[in-house]
Amino acid sequence: MKKYSVIIGAIIGISAMSIHAKTYVLTDTQNNIEVGSWKTEGQNYTIEQQVLHGGKQEGSKVITITSPNGLTIALSPTRGMGLLHAEGNGVHLGWKSPVTELVNPAYINLDSRNGLGWLDGFNEMVVRCGYEWTGHPTTIDGQIYSLHGKAQNTPASYVVVEIDEKPPFAIHVKGLIKESTFKKTDLRTMTQLTYIPGETSFKLHDVLTNHADYGHDYQIIYHSNFSQPILEEGAKFLAPVSEVSPFNDYAKKGLKDWTTYLGSTKDFDEMVFNLKPLSDQNGNTIAALVNKDNNKGVAIEFNTKQLPVLTLWKNTDTLKQGYVTGIEPGTSYAYPVNIERAQKRVKQIEAGQSVSFDLTYSLLSDRSQVQKVENTIKQIQGSTTVKQVETPIAKE
Amino acid sequence: MKKYSVIIGAIIGISAMSIHAKTYVLTDTQNNIEVGSWKTEGQNYTIEQQVLHGGKQEGSKVITITSPNGLTIALSPTRGMGLLHAEGNGVHLGWKSPVTELVNPAYINLDSRNGLGWLDGFNEMVVRCGYEWTGHPTTIDGQIYSLHGKAQNTPASYVVVEIDEKPPFAIHVKGLIKESTFKKTDLRTMTQLTYIPGETSFKLHDVLTNHADYGHDYQIIYHSNFSQPILEEGAKFLAPVSEVSPFNDYAKKGLKDWTTYLGSTKDFDEMVFNLKPLSDQNGNTIAALVNKDNNKGVAIEFNTKQLPVLTLWKNTDTLKQGYVTGIEPGTSYAYPVNIERAQKRVKQIEAGQSVSFDLTYSLLSDRSQVQKVENTIKQIQGSTTVKQVETPIAKE
Amino acid sequence: MKKYSVIIGAIIGISAMSIHAKTYVLTDTQNNIEVGSWKTEGQNYTIEQQVLHGGKQEGSKVITITSPNGLTIALSPTRGMGLLHAEGNGVHLGWKSPVTELVNPAYINLDSRNGLGWLDGFNEMVVRCGYEWTGHPTTIDGQIYSLHGKAQNTPASYVVVEIDEKPPFAIHVKGLIKESTFKKTDLRTMTQLTYIPGETSFKLHDVLTNHADYGHDYQIIYHSNFSQPILEEGAKFLAPVSEVSPFNDYAKKGLKDWTTYLGSTKDFDEMVFNLKPLSDQNGNTIAALVNKDNNKGVAIEFNTKQLPVLTLWKNTDTLKQGYVTGIEPGTSYAYPVNIERAQKRVKQIEAGQSVSFDLTYSLLSDRSQVQKVENTIKQIQGSTTVKQVETPIAKE
Repeated sequence: MKKYSVIIGAIIGISAMSIHAKTYVLTDTQNNIEVGSWKTEGQNYTIEQQVLHGGKQEGSKVITITSPNGLTIALSPTRGMGLLHAEGNGVHLGWKSPVTELVNPAYINLDSRNGLGWLDGFNEMVVRCGYEWTGHPTTIDGQIYSLHGKAQNTPASYVVVEIDEKPPFAIHVKGLIKESTFKKTDLRTMTQLTYIPGETSFKLHDVLTNHADYGHDYQIIYHSNFSQPILEEGAKFLAPVSEVSPFNDYAKKGLKDWTTYLGSTKDFDEMVFNLKPLSDQNGNTIAALVNKDNNKGVAIEFNTKQLPVLTLWKNTDTLKQGYVTGIEPGTSYAYPVNIERAQKRVKQIEAGQSVSFDLTYSLLSDRSQVQKVENTIKQIQGSTTVKQVETPIAKE
Repeated sequence: MKKYSVIIGAIIGISAMSIHAKTYVLTDTQNNIEVGSWKTEGQNYTIEQQVLHGGKQEGSKVITITSPNGLTIALSPTRGMGLLHAEGNGVHLGWKSPVTELVNPAYINLDSRNGLGWLDGFNEMVVRCGYEWTGHPTTIDGQIYSLHGKAQNTPASYVVVEIDEKPPFAIHVKGLIKESTFKKTDLRTMTQLTYIPGETSFKLHDVLTNHADYGHDYQIIYHSNFSQPILEEGAKFLAPVSEVSPFNDYAKKGLKDWTTYLGSTKDFDEMVFNLKPLSDQNGNTIAALVNKDNNKGVAIEFNTKQLPVLTLWKNTDTLKQGYVTGIEPGTSYAYPVNIERAQKRVKQIEAGQSVSFDLTYSLLSDRSQVQKVENTIKQIQGSTTVKQVETPIAKE
Repeated sequence: MKKYSVIIGAIIGISAMSIHAKTYVLTDTQNNIEVGSWKTEGQNYTIEQQVLHGGKQEGSKVITITSPNGLTIALSPTRGMGLLHAEGNGVHLGWKSPVTELVNPAYINLDSRNGLGWLDGFNEMVVRCGYEWTGHPTTIDGQIYSLHGKAQNTPASYVVVEIDEKPPFAIHVKGLIKESTFKKTDLRTMTQLTYIPGETSFKLHDVLTNHADYGHDYQIIYHSNFSQPILEEGAKFLAPVSEVSPFNDYAKKGLKDWTTYLGSTKDFDEMVFNLKPLSDQNGNTIAALVNKDNNKGVAIEFNTKQLPVLTLWKNTDTLKQGYVTGIEPGTSYAYPVNIERAQKRVKQIEAGQSVSFDLTYSLLSDRSQVQKVENTIKQIQGSTTVKQVETPIAKE
């Protein structure tokens, strides 16, 4: 396999931001650049790309950002720029799936198991579920709309690491995910992870562009998954919401305790709740998972103008099955696309138009950080009571 | 990845032709030869194999023949020896698809979208649609017959470049496409592209062999696709035909103008016409696309004994959607295999038998070349009038 | 592609057995080890791993054990540790499929042809058909249960070669096949081939572990396939059985001659027989294929407590179609999983439990070896008569 030498300091005219940045192109299909194993180091960070081998992970790539006093963050260009895990101050963000390999999408058939093939690779901390469609699988006119769409199983066409040369010396990892099918769709998403070394939070700024000459549907769910040490018996979910409803009949029985978690529980399977998030006057809001002792947590800031709904996935089954909860800001709930469309949650993106999605993930590792997030949530919640709707808003 | 040194001048006993040829085996699965990046140069040509990387084109190979005073021709062993594009005298043959990568078939699921997975990779100039089946997808007894069959998404098992050592020093690129499935089919096609450096035409000579001990159906459409600078408002399609009919109801409204093209037209989508080509006494015929000014074009010579029907695909939608027309000599029209079978266009190849398909593609870059093709077409057309059938011959 | 240096003599704490063994880890996804091309030699053996290239076998790996006075055995980590062929004393074990490449599962869609995609890669001597399901394909609630399950098209996650350092200096090739799908299954099979250089038999010892916290169905068929020079007109199948029944109506007409074989026969297709094997008091039994002259054969020893049923697949069609017979000890016959379940042959494996499968394959190359196997079979058969059931026990 031909290895291209790393292009150091090349100025790529992608955005104004890169003018004062060191730029490393790791993948560029248009210019046939594929760097493979790669590493760069700064004063307080290391960024490394590794190519995995063996089994179904043959050829899968991982980019790891390591900041000794901040976070270690891993993401995978091969799996749609999905975030694998993050870690800092002794707190791990992510979870343990029975799927232990970073499966190369070449080995995945999304349509298998009647549209559940996505489950053969699912083990990430943050999965972009979209953008052509998302949600539970369904078959319409013979076409399987497979679980959570194709983006996560699409290898990035263009990957660049940019390191700002002026304070705060932010690191940007951009990756382009193309959902391009002749006659059908040409949705291209330039994902971006931004991390400032030493900090304990990171940002996503994804720009979805409809490259086609016709408008197109889109859906997106940021499927953000966390487990131990934050998730435990007595852990809490916090978010300002106006309404909660069970996803299905099984979740009804968990409605009264929807904000608290069980420990790993045999036969629990999963309960899903549909939430209507509240936000400040700018649409900004925040959701968090906090441990029992209120000294560990993770918070996700997002904007309800971009991501108007929020799904809470409580999968507190046994450790081996995947003890995990998902906090999932999105344009849609997890119902199949036909239900989401009927209920008017499927968005439209006009020809040539772009829409952005911004999320900030913060690792909380002491009581004061947790308290601060709780305060913000209380402030946004204000005096609004949370309406508990007993009946699922849709039936699959 | 193990790289084998290039075998220069080795005599492979494939055909008498190679006795006086320099022979370069680029791929040979039986002997585990895979050359990867490779280049050879002659007095007036360069032939190069490049391995692409990144995104969904990881591992895809391209062979490019460059003849400074003639053509540059690119084809892909990974994608069924499909021809990507050709260029000469400032005229480009091929088109621009929203699919920009040369997708490795490992990333394609032909059955997806109810049999339309082929659209995830379609961006070539010449696609062999076949040979086990072709046409629009259909499901028979639960089996999806996916759009345009499997050949184009089958990596070649054997690839050899032969360069004749006596005039006219033709270059032959052969590639073996195996459609071999235990119990089902063993159709093996030795494709061959022949190009004489300095010329502005090239030939395909494909030999389909039924390697099984039982007869088998086969279908083939040479899906040949062209765009700017030949395709434009006022461009013309020329071919001697006895009959034209619209593929479906939508194409009815284009019937009266079936030989001329629109510029890129929003909401045009595609119109398809079924043609019955006329030929000379040997079965030889020719079809052409010519620009408005009659000084640029492309002509395809083929034989109606091999390829009795001709499909005209007018996809004059916007540039970004893929502004393109397909001239498609075949054994079948593009209806699903069950319709083609009912209408007796599905061919049979007996056990051990071979059938050949010969096509010559010529780039036309001045008025006299265009005129010459027009004259040939007029001569074959003679006094036969073109019957316009208003009603589609089949309904999908 | 990064190549890791071979770890020689490393002690891996997998089993007590490896304490006095040289251990070579060839693949280890958890530690990102993938050795690629590799070779080791001893006094009377060579073990080599080769990476294949070109066509649909790009990246497929083969491990070959060669013992000059014993057997040459080839198996493929990429294709579920399947055994490709074995050879010794001039006798070849295995067969010739029209599928000539060792197809990388990245190029296989098991669901294609309504669940027959497995046929695009089938050419091995021993295929593990399982473990999540096996048998002929069926669709239940929209999910395709594809032919013979997924194990054979799953690249091994962990591959190790161990060579015992004390007599009889056995060679063990272990490979881990994970069928891990979030929410669905976590069946992990540590396959093991054991061969003592100089001998003409080899053993399989496979340990299937249900790594999940819930019980799960499993099925397994050891699809063991042989052809010339053993299979020929007048060749015989030998096994102690209490009952034989035709798999379907077509096999009825072959019932009276079910123990003998035809030469390669046009239009024969395949006849399948369901057998109830007899065994000794420990459950041990043996089945064999013997040539006409009783001087060549192959015997499979297995245990009916592990593998209670036996399928005989007679595919004595023409050589090109694949002239082959399958001797298939299993937990199930080859009916679709819903039939096998209804007839109580689908097994259950509890959470955390392991079940083992042990088989010994012996190459027979003279009359006395054949005679010995025949005697054992006669002894187990004893005075039990073989009941011939005329009607298939199930209808697909």
